[in-house]
Amino acid sequence: MSRPQTQEQAVDAEGDSSLYRNDEEGTQSSHRMLGFSDALLSIIATVMILPVTHTEISPEQQFDKSIQKLLATRIAVYLMTFLIVTVAWAAHTRLFQVVGKIDDTLALLNLACMMTITLLPYTFSLMVTFPDVPLGIFLFCMCVIAIGSVQALIVGYAFHFPHLLNPQIQYSTHRALSRQHVLRLVLRGPALCFVAAVFSLFFFPMSYLLMVTIIFLPHISKAISWCKDKFMGPREPPAHSVESFNIDLHAPLSKERVEAFSDGVYAIVATLLILDIWLLDKCHLFMLPSEDNVPDPKDVQEKFSGSLVTALGAYGPQFLAYFGSFATVGLLWFAHHSLFLHVRKATQTMGLLNILSLAFVGGLPLAYQQTSAFARQPRDELERVRVSCAIIFFASIFQFAIWTAALLHQAETLQPAVRFGGREHAFMFAKLALYPCASLLAFAATCLLSRFSTAIFHLMQIAVPFAFLLLRLLVRLALATLQVLWGLRPWHPQPCLVEPEAQSQLLPAPC
Amino acid sequence: MSRPQTQEQAVDAEGDSSLYRNDEEGTQSSHRMLGFSDALLSIIATVMILPVTHTEISPEQQFDKSIQKLLATRIAVYLMTFLIVTVAWAAHTRLFQVVGKIDDTLALLNLACMMTITLLPYTFSLMVTFPDVPLGIFLFCMCVIAIGSVQALIVGYAFHFPHLLNPQIQYSTHRALSRQHVLRLVLRGPALCFVAAVFSLFFFPMSYLLMVTIIFLPHISKAISWCKDKFMGPREPPAHSVESFNIDLHAPLSKERVEAFSDGVYAIVATLLILDIWLLDKCHLFMLPSEDNVPDPKDVQEKFSGSLVTALGAYGPQFLAYFGSFATVGLLWFAHHSLFLHVRKATQTMGLLNILSLAFVGGLPLAYQQTSAFARQPRDELERVRVSCAIIFFASIFQFAIWTAALLHQAETLQPAVRFGGREHAFMFAKLALYPCASLLAFAATCLLSRFSTAIFHLMQIAVPFAFLLLRLLVRLALATLQVLWGLRPWHPQPCLVEPEAQSQLLPAPC
Repeated sequence: MSRPQTQEQAVDAEGDSSLYRNDEEGTQSSHRMLGFSDALLSIIATVMILPVTHTEISPEQQFDKSIQKLLATRIAVYLMTFLIVTVAWAAHTRLFQVVGKIDDTLALLNLACMMTITLLPYTFSLMVTFPDVPLGIFLFCMCVIAIGSVQALIVGYAFHFPHLLNPQIQYSTHRALSRQHVLRLVLRGPALCFVAAVFSLFFFPMSYLLMVTIIFLPHISKAISWCKDKFMGPREPPAHSVESFNIDLHAPLSKERVEAFSDGVYAIVATLLILDIWLLDKCHLFMLPSEDNVPDPKDVQEKFSGSLVTALGAYGPQFLAYFGSFATVGLLWFAHHSLFLHVRKATQTMGLLNILSLAFVGGLPLAYQQTSAFARQPRDELERVRVSCAIIFFASIFQFAIWTAALLHQAETLQPAVRFGGREHAFMFAKLALYPCASLLAFAATCLLSRFSTAIFHLMQIAVPFAFLLLRLLVRLALATLQVLWGLRPWHPQPCLVEPEAQSQLLPAPC
Repeated sequence: MSRPQTQEQAVDAEGDSSLYRNDEEGTQSSHRMLGFSDALLSIIATVMILPVTHTEISPEQQFDKSIQKLLATRIAVYLMTFLIVTVAWAAHTRLFQVVGKIDDTLALLNLACMMTITLLPYTFSLMVTFPDVPLGIFLFCMCVIAIGSVQALIVGYAFHFPHLLNPQIQYSTHRALSRQHVLRLVLRGPALCFVAAVFSLFFFPMSYLLMVTIIFLPHISKAISWCKDKFMGPREPPAHSVESFNIDLHAPLSKERVEAFSDGVYAIVATLLILDIWLLDKCHLFMLPSEDNVPDPKDVQEKFSGSLVTALGAYGPQFLAYFGSFATVGLLWFAHHSLFLHVRKATQTMGLLNILSLAFVGGLPLAYQQTSAFARQPRDELERVRVSCAIIFFASIFQFAIWTAALLHQAETLQPAVRFGGREHAFMFAKLALYPCASLLAFAATCLLSRFSTAIFHLMQIAVPFAFLLLRLLVRLALATLQVLWGLRPWHPQPCLVEPEAQSQLLPAPC
């Protein structure tokens, strides 16, 4: 029954690409686990938009100050929890750049990490809803400490079994130093939270101050080291840092994880749009626009069974709003996808701009809810169209900013095709600029033609998808027009090698 | 400014792994787009559990027949929409096995496909809620026809630009035949729906019959061809089929897409557990178990500011239920992950069993809701514990069945380590058998000790995670015990090459 080791390894090698057998049992690729973590975290980050969309505002309450204050509070809570969860996600990304491969125990520890992170929005919103009850701050700090503990366990376990580490650290001669460094980073936030929890028992304003510090800690430490460099001159890097794995906060993000997290946000937002239509508003769809009470299915049958057309007519605005909003989310995803196809490395700045863009994408269900309410409350449609345009504008302009930030370091962050002078440069510009321009135009149009604001908005929602479909054609037409107008030499979209000194050229260079 | 083509290609090759430049503009890898599609479809498939969990059942209504009927209807709608969306997802998977690479237009067409698929649950639930209104059937059929049209467009576009096709089809000499075959498969369901839509205008029971046929069409056609083979003997395969790409319904599923879809379901279910706690039930958490009205934050402060311990005590059951349920979902994911690490190819049967398992996983928020209600309604806890145990049992037993189905064709579906006699075989058995056994045990225990049913359930929820952590140790102990009891030769977990004829051996073969 026994065979030489080599034969079995040969058989295994055929299909064993996901298992790394280094004489250690059960070592696995972390790819799927990280994808699952990104999906979970992205959904958790976005769900705090639900209380905002569920804030029932009846027509009489429109201008009630307390309702407006409640809505504003919930929007602020959404933005803050989104930020907090993405900070936790970024920390998770850095942690798993230290850990290269995983085994069963690490997979289970990661699940524990996920569980603790998913409690963050909940404890945070408790803290905000009941600011004077120390319990809220206490629970939030406990949550952060729990996250830190689990992550410290993960670090400890990985360093105990070095074959699990990232190869750069694994073969480094300063592994113990790296371990201390990583643990320090992981436990920094939780340590501050521990102090904040202690303060919460007798002087909680101090707790809030400490927690604000935690959120901005990465940026504060970056600013501090920048100041140090400026004032004390560039220091000699310590001898061991040449070999140390650069896991601090300046390291580029893993592109794959940024994409996975972003996809999760886009997917859950697209789904929330559906939820808003039919799960919580289902019966309203059978009503005529001006009614508010929920009908019996029998009433519905009497009302519509004679006339399909009437029924479809009643659906009309809802479906239009749904299609329009789904198209918006889908096309924003499409632009993101197109951009990141050409990204080699994602810098910290790009990551931050991406988070900001996603935060506004998460606000789209709110925009949808506002615009679908038109059919029922024709007043204030101007306000609502403007809110929607603003949300779409910010979501898309931050996407454009990602590309701009990338262009500043284009040699390392972008592939040649989309750099200045690259053949896809103009198309990328068009894809990313389309929504900012369209929403800005729609906003401006509502200032001039406020009576037709709904029509303008729906026109934008229908025109932009077609513009995307015909994008390449439109861009070529536009460039040809520019040539004719400005008498440029003809530009042919052929591949060009862009030299570093040509970065300042804003127009594609002729080849 | 111009450089020879080769230099630029060399520079591009460095980081251009995601773009395939075959002289065609913008050809891209479909990987991220398919991951996004899987995330979206998995969330859409699972959200129909929300109406079930939101079915408010006050204590007085417990035994109201109409409420029970409503609940049963909603559960049935959930299961059916889950099945329908997974049928659409499977069709999408097959479609993108035909399409190898994508470009911008295909990415946009896929977004349109996603939009139409996301309307499926909505139109289906409309149809079910208002069964006598032809509008419901009509809208559902329109939705299916829309999906078919977009997919036919995708097929037509891909065949028009053959470099986008799967290489096997692209270089086949019978591309036109393949195209017809694919179009036939894609348009089969929509064609039937068209007929059903026509019938819905004057005789809708026929429509329902036709639509049932559509759901079971893949299996019906498989059964028909099996019968044909039996009765008419194996036919000579047509000359061209040797070269044709085998895209019919017997082809194995893409393992990556099965994993991505499953991850989406697990992630959204884990999130729904959070939602059930704090989004829709937030204020209840500050109440003592027997109260039902929502308190003012000021009341809360008065109640708890004096005693943190009391407050935490009030939270206790909710948090325990949350941790327990999150642990269940997380560990079911972990078992799925462990299994699919060792899967080479996923057969149709494995795919079907996976869908069934995921459908029950989607029911876990219902189980959670039932068990978290204990703190408020101590009666009927026995019923609820049993429902929860049953859901967990079915979710996990179908997972075990996937592995069993794989073992039947282990040479092609599994990697050597988990086959009969493989060194991971016993551990895989333990991982997949743990939840079925634990839930069955808990169910049985509630029959004997019905007074302690809650405690039994929580004990199970706490014990199983620890069992997973100590799994390898426990399995080794168990095997050692078996040896002692049954006087077997000592078994050492060393790699063995399992010969095909040794498949019947149920115990690991000594080496």
